[in-house]
This record gives sequence, structure tokens and C-alpha cells, in this order.
Amino acid sequence: MNVESYMIELGRAARAAARVLARAETRQKDAALTAMAAAIERQADRLLAANARDLEAAQAAGLSAALIDRLTLSEKTIAAMAEGLRQIAQLPDPVGEITDLKYRPSGIQVGRMRVPLGVIGIIYEARPNVTADAAGLCLKSGNAAILRGGSEAIHSNQAIAACVRAGLEAAGLPATCVQVVETADRAAVGQLITMKEYVDVIVPRGGKGLIERVTAEARVPVIKHLHGNCHVYVDDRADPDKALRIVENAKTQRYGTCNTAESLLIARGVAEALLPGLARMLTRHGVELRCCPQAMHILQQADIPGARLVPATEADWSEEYLAPILAVKVVEGLEAAIEHINTYGSQHTDAIVTEDYGRARRFLREVDSSSVMVNASTRFADGFEYGLGAEIGISTDKIHARGPVGLEGLTSQKWVVLGDGHVRV
Amino acid sequence: MNVESYMIELGRAARAAARVLARAETRQKDAALTAMAAAIERQADRLLAANARDLEAAQAAGLSAALIDRLTLSEKTIAAMAEGLRQIAQLPDPVGEITDLKYRPSGIQVGRMRVPLGVIGIIYEARPNVTADAAGLCLKSGNAAILRGGSEAIHSNQAIAACVRAGLEAAGLPATCVQVVETADRAAVGQLITMKEYVDVIVPRGGKGLIERVTAEARVPVIKHLHGNCHVYVDDRADPDKALRIVENAKTQRYGTCNTAESLLIARGVAEALLPGLARMLTRHGVELRCCPQAMHILQQADIPGARLVPATEADWSEEYLAPILAVKVVEGLEAAIEHINTYGSQHTDAIVTEDYGRARRFLREVDSSSVMVNASTRFADGFEYGLGAEIGISTDKIHARGPVGLEGLTSQKWVVLGDGHVRV
Repeated sequence: MNVESYMIELGRAARAAARVLARAETRQKDAALTAMAAAIERQADRLLAANARDLEAAQAAGLSAALIDRLTLSEKTIAAMAEGLRQIAQLPDPVGEITDLKYRPSGIQVGRMRVPLGVIGIIYEARPNVTADAAGLCLKSGNAAILRGGSEAIHSNQAIAACVRAGLEAAGLPATCVQVVETADRAAVGQLITMKEYVDVIVPRGGKGLIERVTAEARVPVIKHLHGNCHVYVDDRADPDKALRIVENAKTQRYGTCNTAESLLIARGVAEALLPGLARMLTRHGVELRCCPQAMHILQQADIPGARLVPATEADWSEEYLAPILAVKVVEGLEAAIEHINTYGSQHTDAIVTEDYGRARRFLREVDSSSVMVNASTRFADGFEYGLGAEIGISTDKIHARGPVGLEGLTSQKWVVLGDGHVRV
Repeated sequence: MNVESYMIELGRAARAAARVLARAETRQKDAALTAMAAAIERQADRLLAANARDLEAAQAAGLSAALIDRLTLSEKTIAAMAEGLRQIAQLPDPVGEITDLKYRPSGIQVGRMRVPLGVIGIIYEARPNVTADAAGLCLKSGNAAILRGGSEAIHSNQAIAACVRAGLEAAGLPATCVQVVETADRAAVGQLITMKEYVDVIVPRGGKGLIERVTAEARVPVIKHLHGNCHVYVDDRADPDKALRIVENAKTQRYGTCNTAESLLIARGVAEALLPGLARMLTRHGVELRCCPQAMHILQQADIPGARLVPATEADWSEEYLAPILAVKVVEGLEAAIEHINTYGSQHTDAIVTEDYGRARRFLREVDSSSVMVNASTRFADGFEYGLGAEIGISTDKIHARGPVGLEGLTSQKWVVLGDGHVRV
């Protein structure tokens, strides 16, 4: 069988399973999630054995240490996968929720009911735990899933998929509710992202290369997160202590995450007063500073021991370093900060540090990003921190879902109309 | 200048205008809407003169009477356009609304703010009133608009666009908030629907051909309404009187609208009792019935004078007649009705007539359409009837917006985070 017909077969099966899932009761979905978790724990040895095969192949192929790290399962990560599924089981079921049911002048009641999207395609790279995680989120939100993991994780993913299937069957749901693509052929992705009849949305999870490729070729809608160039703007009415704490946390708590700050903007009025202290703190963390001429001038005057100061180029304002590097720019004030963020930012997460009520209010309204913050670290942009319980990813798009996407982002709303023989006049 | 650079220029201007509009105050947008309405009334003679030029060309080109009808402006339609803009001014501003602002365990407050999508491209056919209507809805929702009407309406659209611009300028907003494409070159559409950097969403309004073409070629997300094959299912626990009233209204109130019923499903248990009465009523309205064998058998026995009974083919179950024709099928019961609707329907609007609580509940949950109704006519599926105030169209998609799309459907939500120096631990 060729890849195209194989994928269409998966698509058909997913479409049929989606219909069953859409009307499945909450307790049945939760039972499946709990059974999946139990199967993963029970089969921990098999998962480790399958993972060992992938790791062996990865080493033989000379894959990078970082990639091998992401690929590796341990007893701890296996326990975390099971725990993640149990947590999803505990979340409220979004499906079927009716909101805003109101009487209209015609006498009908009109409201909205939350419903699954249908079939979700997830395309991801090395991390095998995404298999369990994505399966759980799709299931709970009533969607059938077609999962396409990285070819380097194929044995691990298939072993996890077997546990997922066991859980579904134990709860009396079709095993086809979650299907893992079992071919490493790249054409499978091409087919998955273009077969509109069978797939309602694609969620790519991985590096920028993957996401750009998927977005360029997809004919199915994509919920995507391209990159994160997050800003902290220190206003001239910032509390210096909060500025220090927030910049430190936003930049240095973790360097590799998409909600890490990559650019610091500081108002001219406080640049001389605050920038040296900020730079000292960042230098202690080993952060290199890519400075605009004004920032460079101030920091050279400050003569900070060990400071790594590099002149910023135009490219620095758009860069997602994912590393101990921070772009630093002195701006005139709020207006210039907003303009800079809306021009160079990635519409991910941006924060202002200010005690000024009116400026906070303007920043929230005028910065066009999926998360806008006042006096809080950009690192908070996260499904768990926002109370979504779990996230399938972060969207930097505007259509359908923005920011952290949880169960609700995997659903839609239909209209419900209740009458008693009402007709339109 | 070639079409591509012309469109890119419109796109750039729209992007810049969108930034201004996103932060415009409600009263400024409302002032612009009111000024547009006044300009349209003031310039009624010019609009009629421009329209006369289009009509002359249309007649010379031998366009159909239906098309010429849609193209024609009158004093009445001009007054309705102005009134429509004033009504949009009265609607609450969706932009900036913050909902669900809650404290999280970390101490931050997290909520969502409604924001414009950015730049909206509207592609439509003969009706020039869409120019005013779409401009008004985009403006109120804080979006810049690029409008591409039918080439046959080009003079009318430009005359309306001049009034729109006058209104924007009177309120101190950039005239580029609403731009009308001034070339009849078809390549303009191709460029509009693929320039992702400048356009956030496309709303095609028109016939199925237009919508299919736009959807097939678009690289920008499309909010679309493909077709409406709406069903009324008369359950065996239906109130006969309500069934009669609802079927009559859903089928015969207007034949050409997308929320008109095109298929009648009736439970076997009541088919003999109710179908003849329904057929008599429909025959009085001159509706032809495309019957399944069982329905045909019952109706032939009933011997209804003047009844036009035609055996249904498989194609009839999917057809959108937009005419006095109704497909009629006897089904086993609720389960078969839901299965039929989910298989042949267009996910537009479907209604059940029943007094049975449990079946009503199942129908609402399990029918996968943008509007699902109990004991109400499908004709209610409409932005005004649902209380949206106005609609830009009806979406049969699941992503972003389903069913009637009003101002809210032209917006998105970003996350707002309020802290007081909070950092993530």
C-alpha cells in the first residue's frame, strides 16, 4: 500500500472514531485516560526497551547530544507521562458546555455549545512523551488524533501508542481514536497536512524549521507557534526593584523556552540610573548584552567587570536567541516601546514594568501580542500558569486560538436554538 | 504599476491603518460610522448615477435578470445601507473587553482581552451594498478592510467607497482603514488571498463557485460558508402541529436563503400519519417532493391533488436546491436521522421536531452542525435573530467561528497578565 492510501485509511478511521468520541460521556473518556496511565506504568520496561532501540540507532547515526537528550525516556519521564494523563482526566470536560443561553424577542432561546473540532493531526519531533500528552489532550477534548512523531523516536512512539490503545479499549472506545503514523516516509506528513476531508486542524510541535515547513505546505488550518521574541520594557516610572526581579526571571530562569525574554527595552529617563544595575545582575548570570549605541555608551561608562557588551545589529531586534544573550535598547518612552515591539516582536509575550496606571493600560491595549503583561515575568506565559491545566502548545496566530492552547483551544462552539414550535416571521 | 505591487501597497497601508484602528476609541469609530451614513444619504444621487453606469454595462453585456437585480441600487436600498451603518454604530464595541480575569495561585491575575484580527479581505460579487455593510462591520470591530467587489459593480462600489472614506476622514481616522480594490483585474484576488503578511483573514461572500475558488487558492485563513443543506427531522414524538408549522416556515418562507430547509426526514412511526398532511401543505406552496421509496409509497397512497412527486436519487440527499423542491426521506428514528444529517448535511443548520426530552438532548449534542435546533425553524439561523446585531456571513467551518459571524467573529482574544513584580518560581 502506498503512503497516500495508507494516510487516507488513517483519516477515514479517525473521522469515524471522532463521531463516536464527540458523543462519548466524560466518565468514559476519563476511564480511558486513567487506563492509559496504568498501561504506561505497567509497561514501563517495554517502553524503556523500545526507547533503547531508538537511542542505539540515534547514537549510530551520530545525532546531537541535545537531540538524544530529548529522545531519552527514563523511569522518571515515564512516571511523568502517566501522571500527566491522570491530570488530564481530572480537568473539567469542555465538550457540551452551553453558555450564554438567552431568550430572544422572537421567543427562541439561543446559546452556544462547545464541541470538538473533529480530527487533529499532531506533528512533532524527538520527544516521545508528546505521544501520550497529545493523545490525552485530544481525547479529553473529544477529538480523534493522528500523531506523527519524529522517525528517530519511532519505536518509543509505537510502544506508547500500544498503551494508549490499551487504555481506549479498556474503556470501550475505538482504538482508532488515537492513531500513530507507522511509516517513517516523509510523504506521510505531506498527505496529513493536505487531506482536508479527514483532518480539521494540524498542531506542529517542534523547531522553527518543522513549523515553517508545515505551515508553508498545509491546506488544513494550522495552530502554530513560530517563535518567541519576548520583550520586557522598563518604563521610566518602573519600580527599580521589580524591574530587576522581572528582567532576571524573564531572561535567566530558563534560556531555552519560548517565553524567555530576548529583548530589554528601557526608557531613556531611567536608562542611566537602572541599566548598570540590570547589566551587573545579567553579567553575574553570564548573559551577553547586544546593545544599541546609547545603551553601549551607558554601560561602557559604568565599567562593569566581566560584562560582555556587543554592539547590536538590526538583526538582533528580531532574534530569538534561546541562549544567555539579551538585546538591549534605550527607547524614548512608552510610545517608542510599543512601536518597537509591534515592529520587531513575534506577537508572543511582552511585558511592561511600570507603576503608571495609564501607561499600563495603554501597553495592555496596544501591544499586539498573544500575552501582554504588567509587572510580571514573561515566563508566566504557559498553560499551567494560566490555569488551563495543560497545553497542547502556544499559538502566535490570531485566528481561532492565541497564546497557550489548552483543551478549549481544541474545541469550537456551535449554536443551539430551543423553541416550542417557533417560526420566523 | 502591476497588480501585485498595487495590492501590496494596499496591504501595507491597511496594516498601518489597522494599528491606528486597534487603539481607536469607541466614540471615534461610531462617529465615523455615523458620518458614513450621512455621506451615503447626502450623495444618494451620485450613487444612483454610478449605479446607472454599472447597470448600463450589465445590460449591454447581457447579464442575467437575477444578477442585474442584485446589482441595482434604489433610494430604498441606499437608505437601508445608511441605516445599517447607524445600527452598527449602536452595537457594543467588542474590542478591549476583558473577561475571566482571575487570580492564580502564583499571585498573578490572568484574563483575556478581545482584540481585532487586523486586516480583513472581503471578496464579494454583484451586491454593492456589501461595500458599506462590510466596511462598517470591519471598522466597528477595529479591523482595516480591503474590499474587492464584483467588476460589474465597480462604479457603484467606488461611489460608496468615497462616502466611506469621507466618513473616516470626518472622524479623524485614516481613509486607508477601508480600501476598495480599484482594478477589475482578477489577479488582484489571487494576490489578496495569498499575501499573508498583510491580510489576516479572508471573508468571501457570494456563490459557491466564488467560495470554492477562494478556498482552494487562499494561503490566508478563510471564514467561509460553502452551502446550506439544512434538515428538519420530524421525530415520532413530534407535535404534529409544530411539525407542520416548522416545515412550512423552514421550506417555504424564502427559497433562496442558505438556512432554508432542503431535506425533510421523518420517523417511520409517524410517516403514514404525518407525511400526507405535510405534503398537502407543501403542494399548496408548489413545492416538488423528491421522495425515498417509502415516502413515495405513502404519498402515492394519499393521492394528493396536484402533488409533484419525484423519486429521489442519491444526489438529492446532498443537494442545496434554493428552489421550491424538498428531499423527503423516511428514517427509522433519531439515530438514523442523526447519521443521515452528519453524512449528507453541510454542517449548516438542522432542526428536530420532538416533544421527547432525551431525544432533543441527543440531537443537540450529536448533530455536528453550526446551528442545531429543537422545535424551531431553520430560518432562525441568522445574525440578527441570534442577537449579534449584524453578520458578516455564516461560517460552516469549525476553526475560529461557526454559524452566523458578527463583530465577535472578526476579533480574537489575547491574554492579559497583571502582577506586581511577580516572577515565576
